[in-house]
Amino acid sequence: MSSTGAPPPASSTEKLKPPPLPDMFKRRAYSFGEVDNVSSPSCPQIFKSKLCIVTVGLPARGKTYSAVKLARYLRWIGINTKVFNVGNYRRKMFGAYQPHHFYHPDNEDGVEKRTKCAMEALGDVIHYLNIEDGHVAVFDATNTTRERRKLVEQRCKDNRIEVFYIEIVCTDDKLVAENIKEVKLSSPDYEGIENEEAIKDFAQRLKNYEAAYEPLDEDYDKDRSWVKLIDVTETTVGNRISNHLQSRMVYYLMNTHIKKHNIYICRHGESKFNLEGRVGGDSELTDNGKMFAKKLAEFVGQLEAKPPLKVWTSQLKRSVQTASYLSMDSEEWKSLNELEAGACDALTYAQIHEKFPDEFALRDQDKYHYRYPRGESYADLVHRLEPVIMELERQENVLVICHQSVMRCLLAYFLDKTQEELPYIKCPLHTVLKLKPKAYECDVEEFCLGTGVNTYRPKPKVTDTQRTTEEALETAP
Amino acid sequence: MSSTGAPPPASSTEKLKPPPLPDMFKRRAYSFGEVDNVSSPSCPQIFKSKLCIVTVGLPARGKTYSAVKLARYLRWIGINTKVFNVGNYRRKMFGAYQPHHFYHPDNEDGVEKRTKCAMEALGDVIHYLNIEDGHVAVFDATNTTRERRKLVEQRCKDNRIEVFYIEIVCTDDKLVAENIKEVKLSSPDYEGIENEEAIKDFAQRLKNYEAAYEPLDEDYDKDRSWVKLIDVTETTVGNRISNHLQSRMVYYLMNTHIKKHNIYICRHGESKFNLEGRVGGDSELTDNGKMFAKKLAEFVGQLEAKPPLKVWTSQLKRSVQTASYLSMDSEEWKSLNELEAGACDALTYAQIHEKFPDEFALRDQDKYHYRYPRGESYADLVHRLEPVIMELERQENVLVICHQSVMRCLLAYFLDKTQEELPYIKCPLHTVLKLKPKAYECDVEEFCLGTGVNTYRPKPKVTDTQRTTEEALETAP
Repeated sequence: MSSTGAPPPASSTEKLKPPPLPDMFKRRAYSFGEVDNVSSPSCPQIFKSKLCIVTVGLPARGKTYSAVKLARYLRWIGINTKVFNVGNYRRKMFGAYQPHHFYHPDNEDGVEKRTKCAMEALGDVIHYLNIEDGHVAVFDATNTTRERRKLVEQRCKDNRIEVFYIEIVCTDDKLVAENIKEVKLSSPDYEGIENEEAIKDFAQRLKNYEAAYEPLDEDYDKDRSWVKLIDVTETTVGNRISNHLQSRMVYYLMNTHIKKHNIYICRHGESKFNLEGRVGGDSELTDNGKMFAKKLAEFVGQLEAKPPLKVWTSQLKRSVQTASYLSMDSEEWKSLNELEAGACDALTYAQIHEKFPDEFALRDQDKYHYRYPRGESYADLVHRLEPVIMELERQENVLVICHQSVMRCLLAYFLDKTQEELPYIKCPLHTVLKLKPKAYECDVEEFCLGTGVNTYRPKPKVTDTQRTTEEALETAP
Repeated sequence: MSSTGAPPPASSTEKLKPPPLPDMFKRRAYSFGEVDNVSSPSCPQIFKSKLCIVTVGLPARGKTYSAVKLARYLRWIGINTKVFNVGNYRRKMFGAYQPHHFYHPDNEDGVEKRTKCAMEALGDVIHYLNIEDGHVAVFDATNTTRERRKLVEQRCKDNRIEVFYIEIVCTDDKLVAENIKEVKLSSPDYEGIENEEAIKDFAQRLKNYEAAYEPLDEDYDKDRSWVKLIDVTETTVGNRISNHLQSRMVYYLMNTHIKKHNIYICRHGESKFNLEGRVGGDSELTDNGKMFAKKLAEFVGQLEAKPPLKVWTSQLKRSVQTASYLSMDSEEWKSLNELEAGACDALTYAQIHEKFPDEFALRDQDKYHYRYPRGESYADLVHRLEPVIMELERQENVLVICHQSVMRCLLAYFLDKTQEELPYIKCPLHTVLKLKPKAYECDVEEFCLGTGVNTYRPKPKVTDTQRTTEEALETAP
């Protein structure tokens, strides 16, 4: 962020560079002993140009909620995405608290200052998309007037950035009031100000915006690409959804809801292969693993989830067996199966190193993108788990009994972990995590129902293909 | 279809039976030598209840086009779906040609007769969903008045059938005129009638409908589930999209267009494994296969496709190599990789029979659902190819260089083949198919650019697990 406050000139800082490929589309071709650095899209056309998502809507309608959530989803599928919240710029540039008349359309000084903030943020959007490695930026502000949208649109156009509007409309006054209480009153804008006074001030601020609000219009805005979400996707209006990425975003947003719900995730109970230190396979539970399955049934029995918990497992024996003591039925998903280790399936780490030392080292170099010969990478797994995430977003209370790699991918989505962090997230056996999605983040609670054998192998210090056996197995459990 | 013409009584014919599971959700668990008949959904929640899709819109707006296309897509993903076109009932019950005043809202006799047709069709819808094995029925009629929709809705409700409306709106008069010319004038309604007279009559018929048209309304219909497609998905309005299946249909419809385009599909050139009679693997092209790759480049060079052809391959060598002589770049899709033969990968049919005789027999018994140990079934493949179909629907001219099983799945989508037919569709090597999607079907043209080794193994007569080697290999190429 530059310190001038004025819109940065469309000069050196806004120079164009060709859009780099999102990470998820970089792949390593099958490499049996040979290093192959081919990079190519595994899903053509999903990503063509630089995109700025422009939110539209009155304050307290859930714009930032949607922006943050969508950005997290896009990052998870491998698209570099960042939210630029104009409110944050305002707080930094002119201080947190501004009384409501600051937001009055006739207050010239206020208008000028607010425009400065917006243009400052937009300059950073352009820098992120055209100079840094950003693919999608969310320009998170009210953008309630046509004049403001025109300004934003022109600047994006000048910098060859595609614009997609997301308008959030909420006609349910109760929901708006709840949102104000939950998010706005605890925001830095009202720090040190009495609740009652804050509510009064915010109501006045809302009125100022309502007076000038020009919603997206099916006629006036017919040539623009946009989606309007009315009353939390009760009604969704899509206009000129012009490419794959836009239609995926609409599909995603259409599947989300804001009801409070809990998602429980755990791995299967300890399996015979776990005990033998082998990866993959389809082995049965050990006695210790069965013990966990029984404890899990007790744990679930006490939950009193409303609506009742749904249980999903993979199709592998250890996952299905873990659900077998539960009082409710469970459903099997092929998509929840463990990462396919291909040629390395059923081997121990020592055997993998012995048979395929180069492969083993390559995996340690870039665990997220590394694909086992004839098997999968974590990137592949994320792709395979997308329908599961869509369905988790639709559902309310769910228990997912899955596998180490699968659990890592699911957690990365909810907890916004990077591709570097993802393959090293600790998911010990016999531990249930309770996820409680909230407005801008997700609460996590851990329930340890016993101990299973340790299967965690941290990244070793030495990862080159010339390393010794000792170095390769340094961190093996 | 009963012959009375009157609405069938809501009696014995409309009795309820529990909805059977769509085929795609029946699976065989991993079975290494043992037969496991577990049936369970691989994608929970996609299908919960019986659904009647009710089309809404003026004549010649493309309702039947969307109905037929959507039904084909749903059948392809394993959901039994049938279109009930009320126009066909009218033609059968009262003869094809009816002059425009038949459709006038004040013509009591006409109204009565048309209601009879609709109720007759609806009776069949209910029979299909509640007595036969139907999951989704499309009630394809204008349904332009609230009164008519209420009648349909009530009858569905009485039979525990969920209703989802799809309204097609077209504000582009040129498009409507084209549609009238292309579809309506050649319809049996105007057989033997001069074009000019037919156009005049149809225009009058349209006027009768326009006078009574009550579109779905965001207020009046706010508690109903519906999607409105305006000007070929230029604008899409979704309301109360209340489950996974509905959101999938909206996503699908949002991705379709009606521009004329051609899709070319072929397998890779002959590979070393083809020559050796081995399945799967990742072998290179033979000299003969390379010859095909060159001829393919010549063939493509002559096409002059506008917009230019895009080329997609799988990530396997034989597919990538086949594209290597083309003048344009190609894009690699992991989703286009050949069906994973798992434990049987790289084996000949004789070897599969020798090592896994039971597996080999089970596959012959139900080739569509059979899943190779640690590999895939055709049903899995269809699931994996869904994003490819979505993208093919978005795109214009594309050449897909893929594999035998993959090509069969893609063809089954475009040519509406059943799950029984799909695994036996003939896709010889070195032959390019040109698909030209049209209003209600798809034209196919075949270009033979040489011959490769035969890899086609028809279903053998004997498929029980006790069969002899001779019987098992009877049809092996």
